[in-house]
Amino acid sequence: MTTSLNKLQNLYQESKDGALKDFFTFLKFESVSSEIEHKEHVLQCAEWLKEYIAEMGFTTELWETSGHPIVFASYLEAGPEKPTLLIYNHYDVQPVDPVELWESPPFEPTIRDGEVYARGAEDNKGQCFYVLQALKLLLKRDGTLPINIKLCIEGEEETGSAGISEILKHKEKELQADYLAIVDLGIRKPDKPAITLGVRGMVTMDVEVEGSDTDLHSGSHGGIVYNPIHALSEILSNLRDANGKITVPGFYDDVIPLTDTERSQLNLDFETMEYQTMFGATPSGGEQNFEPLERAWTRPTLEVNGINGGYTGSGFKTVIPAKAHAKISCRLVPNQDPHKIGKLVADHIKSLAPEGIKVDVDVHPGVGTAVRSDVSSTIIQAFSQAYQEVFNDKTEYIFEGGSIPIINELAKASNSSVALVGLGLPDDQVHAPNEHFGINRIEKGSLIIARAIEVLVGK
Amino acid sequence: MTTSLNKLQNLYQESKDGALKDFFTFLKFESVSSEIEHKEHVLQCAEWLKEYIAEMGFTTELWETSGHPIVFASYLEAGPEKPTLLIYNHYDVQPVDPVELWESPPFEPTIRDGEVYARGAEDNKGQCFYVLQALKLLLKRDGTLPINIKLCIEGEEETGSAGISEILKHKEKELQADYLAIVDLGIRKPDKPAITLGVRGMVTMDVEVEGSDTDLHSGSHGGIVYNPIHALSEILSNLRDANGKITVPGFYDDVIPLTDTERSQLNLDFETMEYQTMFGATPSGGEQNFEPLERAWTRPTLEVNGINGGYTGSGFKTVIPAKAHAKISCRLVPNQDPHKIGKLVADHIKSLAPEGIKVDVDVHPGVGTAVRSDVSSTIIQAFSQAYQEVFNDKTEYIFEGGSIPIINELAKASNSSVALVGLGLPDDQVHAPNEHFGINRIEKGSLIIARAIEVLVGK
Repeated sequence: MTTSLNKLQNLYQESKDGALKDFFTFLKFESVSSEIEHKEHVLQCAEWLKEYIAEMGFTTELWETSGHPIVFASYLEAGPEKPTLLIYNHYDVQPVDPVELWESPPFEPTIRDGEVYARGAEDNKGQCFYVLQALKLLLKRDGTLPINIKLCIEGEEETGSAGISEILKHKEKELQADYLAIVDLGIRKPDKPAITLGVRGMVTMDVEVEGSDTDLHSGSHGGIVYNPIHALSEILSNLRDANGKITVPGFYDDVIPLTDTERSQLNLDFETMEYQTMFGATPSGGEQNFEPLERAWTRPTLEVNGINGGYTGSGFKTVIPAKAHAKISCRLVPNQDPHKIGKLVADHIKSLAPEGIKVDVDVHPGVGTAVRSDVSSTIIQAFSQAYQEVFNDKTEYIFEGGSIPIINELAKASNSSVALVGLGLPDDQVHAPNEHFGINRIEKGSLIIARAIEVLVGK
Repeated sequence: MTTSLNKLQNLYQESKDGALKDFFTFLKFESVSSEIEHKEHVLQCAEWLKEYIAEMGFTTELWETSGHPIVFASYLEAGPEKPTLLIYNHYDVQPVDPVELWESPPFEPTIRDGEVYARGAEDNKGQCFYVLQALKLLLKRDGTLPINIKLCIEGEEETGSAGISEILKHKEKELQADYLAIVDLGIRKPDKPAITLGVRGMVTMDVEVEGSDTDLHSGSHGGIVYNPIHALSEILSNLRDANGKITVPGFYDDVIPLTDTERSQLNLDFETMEYQTMFGATPSGGEQNFEPLERAWTRPTLEVNGINGGYTGSGFKTVIPAKAHAKISCRLVPNQDPHKIGKLVADHIKSLAPEGIKVDVDVHPGVGTAVRSDVSSTIIQAFSQAYQEVFNDKTEYIFEGGSIPIINELAKASNSSVALVGLGLPDDQVHAPNEHFGINRIEKGSLIIARAIEVLVGK
């Protein structure tokens, strides 16, 4: 163990109780960015965060957007001859439903078995919080930071980052950096350090299928009209063939297969039994001629994220609904243009409308392109060493199937090379009921961020 | 116009204001039988109805069931040498959602353009109410009724009539009758009298499709697991072929095609433009090798009445849900056994489960067999004459695609021959927002019921 790491660990132990209290305050804000009724909560969370970071000694500001604001902070005491690291997090969270499946209320953080349970505990408040603790540790020890640090913490990651995307071009000067760390990723196992070399892009859309002006009695009209639930089911099932391949014409046209070198850097081992135990699910979805992790990491997908139509309450209602709806997301790989794919999917869905059925597709403007990092870059190597020190094990390289829409735009605006890091675990239940994050990972994360910063200046 | 009809009309005019007030009281009870939170409202409605009929001079009682009670009433002053007519209605109503589409609150009856808007205005409180007004007219005029009348008004028609089905065998003596009038049907156009010669049977079921123990992030898991919404869509779309034929093995095995004579008695004319104007829908559903009304009246159907899974709120949530659900109903024709069909459909659905997906089907116990009336029977001929007198036009014969699950069992228990009558219209919005019923149909219905009773004793 390095001397520096040792000192940081001791410092962490001294401050951890106060830190946990602050973390709970952060988690209690109901900063659900997709739900209009939470707009004020999102703003309150941003303001609290700005104040918290200002108290650390950073210059802070809120950047207004068309949606929720961005918390921007900088500490530039190291001076222009030292490198600048821009760190990205987000303070907004996913909706909480089905809320009845939470064992403790989503916005009342609760510790069970060393894990903090709350919406956002991992994604991304937990990961944002240990970044701040890392900076506090360094500041406490040295009174200053060895490199220049900028923090960009947005409030619309869960809804597609439309706001930050709009204002990036006006903020290129402020965002200028040498390195960009996106701290919203994870590792595969609690004891194995890992850095993510790529994430998928994304485009999302709403589908509305309409069969009549009003709900109809399924006795009087059953057999006459085309039931929009039938039409929607048929359209959705027609988007995939029997082998799980997406049938939208042109969907795979721009996909560049992995090279042998790229493939050899990745650990594609998939433990089916462990997956089954963890999620109660088998790897039976997706394209059958690829391995499970190849499908999730390196292939584009199309998933229906929500469907509804007709009567879905208790009991029964013999109705043919006027309309049925679905929400669809496509995950994309490098070289796929999300706008192009969105249009291809929307056009194909509309072309599948049966006679008598009107189909509308609303492709959402917030999209993201896929990202790939260069394993030999300075920033990846710095984090690789930091992870290795803290875990005392060799860092592995993985991919992530999820998306962080803004990465490429942010890397371009800041003119920096990017590292995708974090300490999420596959069973953290992000985007699901009972999301949680280990208290020990707050410590590990603080140490990794602090050590990576030091390694960047050769410490 | 007959003298008797003329007198009845004058009497109706004298009493109509008080009657409308009583009708509104009846409509205000939130007697939604399928929703447990309305159990007390259903009971209050039954008790009010019992009291209302008792005040007319009938002997009344509430028959308890495992679910909601039945209002039973009798007036047997005509004596054993006179025929007995058993009249069936129901006082329970459908749920009101989507409640935001109602122009006036569903349980605050409101008159617009001569129509009463309320849940149950037609189905079946309106039709039940004019039966009671008919009896009041005759009692007011003559101080007695010319035949024996029994009323059976149940509270579970909209949920499959399980309660009445259970107790029928214990009530055969009380229900004994010569004729049975089911007053829950309709006519095709406001000015054309029509009697229904048959209704379809029904079996309903809930389908649950499960892919994992918990909701999963569609980025991390998309391409790995089998999305249960995909599985459900595929299963549902596999239940019908490209021509709208149901693909469940054995589904049509017991269907007896219409004879040429039966077909010639029916008016199968379908006015596509009028249907389009009325419902904003085209007759593009169902089996393509049958005419629209043949499909709705004489062919079995399978309709999905509700579907839900994943995130369906505002904005977006990139989730692969643990489960997805659908509600299915099959409408059946004579000689089809609903229990057999329910099992065939459930077995077929389960056989369609893809690898990694668990499928459960819960076939509901409340079912109904299809009904056919004999056009030459005394009761049909009596109603045919009564409709003709009131409308001053020849009565036509139609079918109804909907179901009244209890008819055959009630006909058997009461040992009577059945007539399916009523004054519903295709655009009454039954089972939908803004259900309504014309005040002029309260009058016509009162007169038809009263005249049919007189015709049965040669008056």
